[in-house]
Amino acid sequence: MTAPRTAALLLLAACAAAPSAPDRQALAQQLVERALVDNQAIELLRGLVTAAPQRLAGSPGAEAAVQWGLASMRQLGLQNVRAEPCTVPHWQRGEERAEVIAPAPAPLRVTALGGSVPTPPGGLTAELIEVRSFEQLAALGDAARGKIVFFNRPMPRILQRTGQAYGAAVPQRSNGAIEAAKAGAVGALVRSMTTTIDEFPHTGAMQYAAGVPEVPAAAVATADAERLAALLRQGPVQIRLELGCRTLPDAASANVVGELVGSEHPERVVLIGGHLDAWDLGQGAHDDGAGIAHVLEAARLLQACGVRPACTVRVVLFMNEENGLAGAKAYAAAHAGEPHQAALETDSGGFTPEGFQCSLTGAAAEAMRARFEPLQQYRMGAFVAGGGGGADISLLAAQGVPLFGLLVIGHRYFDYHHSARDAIDNVNERELALGAAAVAYAAAVLAE
Amino acid sequence: MTAPRTAALLLLAACAAAPSAPDRQALAQQLVERALVDNQAIELLRGLVTAAPQRLAGSPGAEAAVQWGLASMRQLGLQNVRAEPCTVPHWQRGEERAEVIAPAPAPLRVTALGGSVPTPPGGLTAELIEVRSFEQLAALGDAARGKIVFFNRPMPRILQRTGQAYGAAVPQRSNGAIEAAKAGAVGALVRSMTTTIDEFPHTGAMQYAAGVPEVPAAAVATADAERLAALLRQGPVQIRLELGCRTLPDAASANVVGELVGSEHPERVVLIGGHLDAWDLGQGAHDDGAGIAHVLEAARLLQACGVRPACTVRVVLFMNEENGLAGAKAYAAAHAGEPHQAALETDSGGFTPEGFQCSLTGAAAEAMRARFEPLQQYRMGAFVAGGGGGADISLLAAQGVPLFGLLVIGHRYFDYHHSARDAIDNVNERELALGAAAVAYAAAVLAE
Repeated sequence: MTAPRTAALLLLAACAAAPSAPDRQALAQQLVERALVDNQAIELLRGLVTAAPQRLAGSPGAEAAVQWGLASMRQLGLQNVRAEPCTVPHWQRGEERAEVIAPAPAPLRVTALGGSVPTPPGGLTAELIEVRSFEQLAALGDAARGKIVFFNRPMPRILQRTGQAYGAAVPQRSNGAIEAAKAGAVGALVRSMTTTIDEFPHTGAMQYAAGVPEVPAAAVATADAERLAALLRQGPVQIRLELGCRTLPDAASANVVGELVGSEHPERVVLIGGHLDAWDLGQGAHDDGAGIAHVLEAARLLQACGVRPACTVRVVLFMNEENGLAGAKAYAAAHAGEPHQAALETDSGGFTPEGFQCSLTGAAAEAMRARFEPLQQYRMGAFVAGGGGGADISLLAAQGVPLFGLLVIGHRYFDYHHSARDAIDNVNERELALGAAAVAYAAAVLAE
Repeated sequence: MTAPRTAALLLLAACAAAPSAPDRQALAQQLVERALVDNQAIELLRGLVTAAPQRLAGSPGAEAAVQWGLASMRQLGLQNVRAEPCTVPHWQRGEERAEVIAPAPAPLRVTALGGSVPTPPGGLTAELIEVRSFEQLAALGDAARGKIVFFNRPMPRILQRTGQAYGAAVPQRSNGAIEAAKAGAVGALVRSMTTTIDEFPHTGAMQYAAGVPEVPAAAVATADAERLAALLRQGPVQIRLELGCRTLPDAASANVVGELVGSEHPERVVLIGGHLDAWDLGQGAHDDGAGIAHVLEAARLLQACGVRPACTVRVVLFMNEENGLAGAKAYAAAHAGEPHQAALETDSGGFTPEGFQCSLTGAAAEAMRARFEPLQQYRMGAFVAGGGGGADISLLAAQGVPLFGLLVIGHRYFDYHHSARDAIDNVNERELALGAAAVAYAAAVLAE
């Protein structure tokens, strides 16, 4: 914590009922400069990944993350700091390995998809059949029966926003096991969700459907996916897959909540949040340690810069975004009917911020856009109307809450996403700090 | 090399004397999409850092880089491919080590600055004296005599553009040995030029002045600089510095040049360039392997997209940017009087492009800005008038050539710059590809 240095301008801005454009310019400048100079966002992230390097929902690491979140909020001077309970699924990875059996032995780098059932004792040995779409699989008729379906459609490189490229490929991961089982297959092997060719399997959530057999599902590194595709062009390929994962009974966990209580309308809430849980292969430094660092550092920055919003800024560290949204559901239920002015989520990594997307449209969006224009001096002034916020806050849409999401330059995101490479060494402290400044600015103008 | 896929639109644009805004929109889209889909920029960079991972001017690696450049240009179908000779300095690093002697032994991570003289046999043992500016050093009077001056002013975090932060600190590296010697010191130890605290020494060029004793100069990792500063607050600190570097006789080397000959005005030249040499601690992947990949991939993209500029696009891979500009001087002398429409350099790393800076001002700059507006759809439309281009092309300013420089989002640049971390693993292929597309677009509109 550092004391405010040049808070005079901001006190002016904070006290006025409707800050002027120059006030907001000064606010943006002060938050950005303070974020860069103090450089605390990276220290918050370092604290999280040190205290809880692995923190999948239900795990001891997730509990450590909750305790770290509570302690951090208290240290940052937030008010009403508490853990709000939720009940989360508890899936464990276990041992996992795979190899090509025929035409010639070769290792395969795989990882279980989150929620997968294990393979039978001794593993699963079967022939691979490659498809690029569910339609192609359905058209195969009985050809996939008894085989492992290899879903190998790449994320399209051509799309400018890697998030959109993810959306174009990720149904293979989410629903591949269901579609494979419907076709009579005994397992699903999914090309990892990344824009590049690498040696790392990237995990992520998958689901089963009532009435459809539950077959094991794994992701394979894109480099190996390319090799498998080349082998399959030459003839049949048989692999052995062994997944030791298991689902334990649901566990007690919590969202972590703290507030900067509003000076004029404490009952009105502006939520800023990220998610505390992370996939277990890396440190979850970008997904979503960065979001956690963003919102905690935003709360620190607002205080350090002497900003006193009229409405309450509520910081929420959600639990179980990755595989169940239990924290999101618990929050939406517990706080239904509370007047939320807005909810903002940051869950796209700690990269250079571009601005925000927002669920508002039409005149409401245009009025809001003007409030974010002062961020343009830092090239963070993008404002995309009609977009979403994030998975955790999406449940608040039904309550009419305007949703906001931090936009970042995401070309690198899927280099790391859900893999062993999602580590703090791959986070740049300046990019992370600027994201925190952007979130702090948004919280301030939304809570005016 | 891949054949053009949808060149029809572009042929239209290329044949028209003055392409319209929609033509340029289509051109930008085609170049960006082709760059992302083909993903060849990273392959060019991989080729360079494989063929010549170390390529400081005068070294065998630099010669390998020249040969690689010639072969690559020929493979890409450039015309008039040749090596244009220049004579370069030949400085070699040698063994180097340092340690704290008193108050207690501790290792120090240092590296010789480029051009430094060696320490005497057995190394240099002396007390450190810390300063943050040349003014502070001058004010010390005789206090630095017989000591090693420790220049420890950090790059200012607060500046948005890390290049400006570099400019604010780098005179310590360039001129520290001169100022130290003037004060009677026996050596200079300079805080590494990086915005972060890390364990890597970052080298770079330094100079001596006629009539001033030549004292050895080294960079120290910022983490060690912080430790030294803490020690110095407690009392005297003595270190031992051993640098085995040496300067050999000047060597023969070359710029590598190739062209896409203009369809209407082949005598008019639009130069696009980067520099082929690199500091020796890493692979020079960002500095300036990325620039080399940008300009070669730009030439590929123009051909692949069927763009036939009216003027000649000349690709120049300059030699010896890092420690002498011998290639830049040779080019400026050999091509004096040739009608250059423009010269563009990319030497800021392979990061997400933002747009260009340009030496033009006033009405000429505004007219040029309009030609770059189609890049705004990809958030690469920044156009900063009155800026420079790059060191290699700076000598063309005297000939009245408008200079352009690629602007990128440089928050990460000094994490890698001139250190062991400047390796291809720290380059994102999408960010690199977009830079190449931006350079290709600029070449096309400048050579219309």
